[in-house]
Amino acid sequence: MPHTATTSEPTMLRDVLENGCTTIDAALERLLPGENIRPESIHRAMRHSIFAGGKRLRPILCMEAGRALRGDLPAGIEDLGCALEMLHTYSLVHDDLPALDNDDLRRGKPTCHKVFGEAIAILAGDALQTTAYEVLSGLNCPAADRIRIVGEIARGAGTVDGMIGGQVVDLESERVAPTAELVEYIHRSKTGALITASVVSGGLYAGASDSQVEDLRAFGRAIGLAFQIVDDVLDMTQSSEQLGKTAGKDTATSKATWPAVHGVEPSLQQADDLIKSGCARLDSFGPRASTLKELAHFLVQRKK
Amino acid sequence: MPHTATTSEPTMLRDVLENGCTTIDAALERLLPGENIRPESIHRAMRHSIFAGGKRLRPILCMEAGRALRGDLPAGIEDLGCALEMLHTYSLVHDDLPALDNDDLRRGKPTCHKVFGEAIAILAGDALQTTAYEVLSGLNCPAADRIRIVGEIARGAGTVDGMIGGQVVDLESERVAPTAELVEYIHRSKTGALITASVVSGGLYAGASDSQVEDLRAFGRAIGLAFQIVDDVLDMTQSSEQLGKTAGKDTATSKATWPAVHGVEPSLQQADDLIKSGCARLDSFGPRASTLKELAHFLVQRKK
Repeated sequence: MPHTATTSEPTMLRDVLENGCTTIDAALERLLPGENIRPESIHRAMRHSIFAGGKRLRPILCMEAGRALRGDLPAGIEDLGCALEMLHTYSLVHDDLPALDNDDLRRGKPTCHKVFGEAIAILAGDALQTTAYEVLSGLNCPAADRIRIVGEIARGAGTVDGMIGGQVVDLESERVAPTAELVEYIHRSKTGALITASVVSGGLYAGASDSQVEDLRAFGRAIGLAFQIVDDVLDMTQSSEQLGKTAGKDTATSKATWPAVHGVEPSLQQADDLIKSGCARLDSFGPRASTLKELAHFLVQRKK
Repeated sequence: MPHTATTSEPTMLRDVLENGCTTIDAALERLLPGENIRPESIHRAMRHSIFAGGKRLRPILCMEAGRALRGDLPAGIEDLGCALEMLHTYSLVHDDLPALDNDDLRRGKPTCHKVFGEAIAILAGDALQTTAYEVLSGLNCPAADRIRIVGEIARGAGTVDGMIGGQVVDLESERVAPTAELVEYIHRSKTGALITASVVSGGLYAGASDSQVEDLRAFGRAIGLAFQIVDDVLDMTQSSEQLGKTAGKDTATSKATWPAVHGVEPSLQQADDLIKSGCARLDSFGPRASTLKELAHFLVQRKK
């Protein structure tokens, strides 16, 4: 697949992903209440879901957006990344509930409600959301930037073109023939909006100018949609073992997916085009953005 | 019952409560997405629960804390009040779910999941929480105060001595003989922490000094506990019709209640003592705090 970044090797990207996971996991360990703190059950449930082996994609995108601005990772930006991961994880915990997607497995492990029961799973999701905003309130950047970050992320996670809105439309579209407009709305909202907020908030943390914020937003919107297109394709073409979750479930439940509307090959081409146009918005950032661009390409090349 | 405020008449308190409700309802109407905005179902569900006739106690306490500092209501403080009401309402929507308290009625009306189904009710609760933080990010006060307010409220709504923590311990204490320590933990966390955050955040919005914040916190902790003690007593002694919800449910499910441990009359005396000691912390505020003190007395004199 095409590749616009030239300053880094594939091994460097692997380091970024591995170091990113390590950094985020250590920060999550510090930021989440310990399992010995009352009430123990909710803290165990929150930790069960957050340490179930996620790719830490949103935190890493956020941190690399910071690096694209500053050349290095801004000090303390991992806490912002953790807040994003908490929000992503809360949405998964609630999506997996019997009343929603009714999933027993997530990332190859039993889902929160399978281990802790539905009541605690609902409250653990709630608490992951609450803790995310508590963490944002204490970020190591000027108060004016912190409060902009809170607003940016809350809108991305919200109902109007945001994560919850996409989830609602996705739920209500089961057993409805998907249209291109519907699938794009769902993907841009349910997945794209929080990915966009991850990139934009990383930029705000690093002191991005208004025009840089808008470039990061355009980049985030493009890669967020591309990411979900590839996710749909992988669900159709990979096994459950490869994915660590039930494969083919989208087709089985006639969920609105991109390849169902556009076909597999055109979907992959569209994802690739989105990555290219998204990365073009980072050209003004110069070589500092090379890792962020590489990450974008990785999103469409991944196998799970 | 004893009464320390002397500058206002009972009719004035009624005005404060009525005007407070009107102000908050108008602001909620403005701040919540309209029912015609996609996805319509979630916005209908959010509005169903938030406009189901709450007393707007937390917003009014918040606004009166602002008045206790400034002498008048600080401009725009109703938006902060609305965020608090959204958080309170999200907790009710989730508490009412079948996996938790399984309540069909709330404030005399069908609960969110009875009208919209469990999936939408879970997501509507999530969205009320998200919208609360979005509203906080846009408050009309200095960024440094806004971000302190976000932290204060997130901690009050959280798991460690906060609203969710109290809910977890409450759930886990069903069918366990309640002790005084257990009931106090539940009440201070589940109800008291958000009431305390309401009073403290109103003070922060109005520019309270550190010592004023601590006085407001002590006041909030006292009245928050007193409020829940009285709530327990009312649940034991009033009919469902008077309360607008299923009465006697606490006893039926052997929930940990204050009168179950301390008896009804001692409970009312303790609530009264708490109000008195809480109000004493406001003496340094002078006559500006008279309405806030009256509100505190109203909390233990109410009949529903």
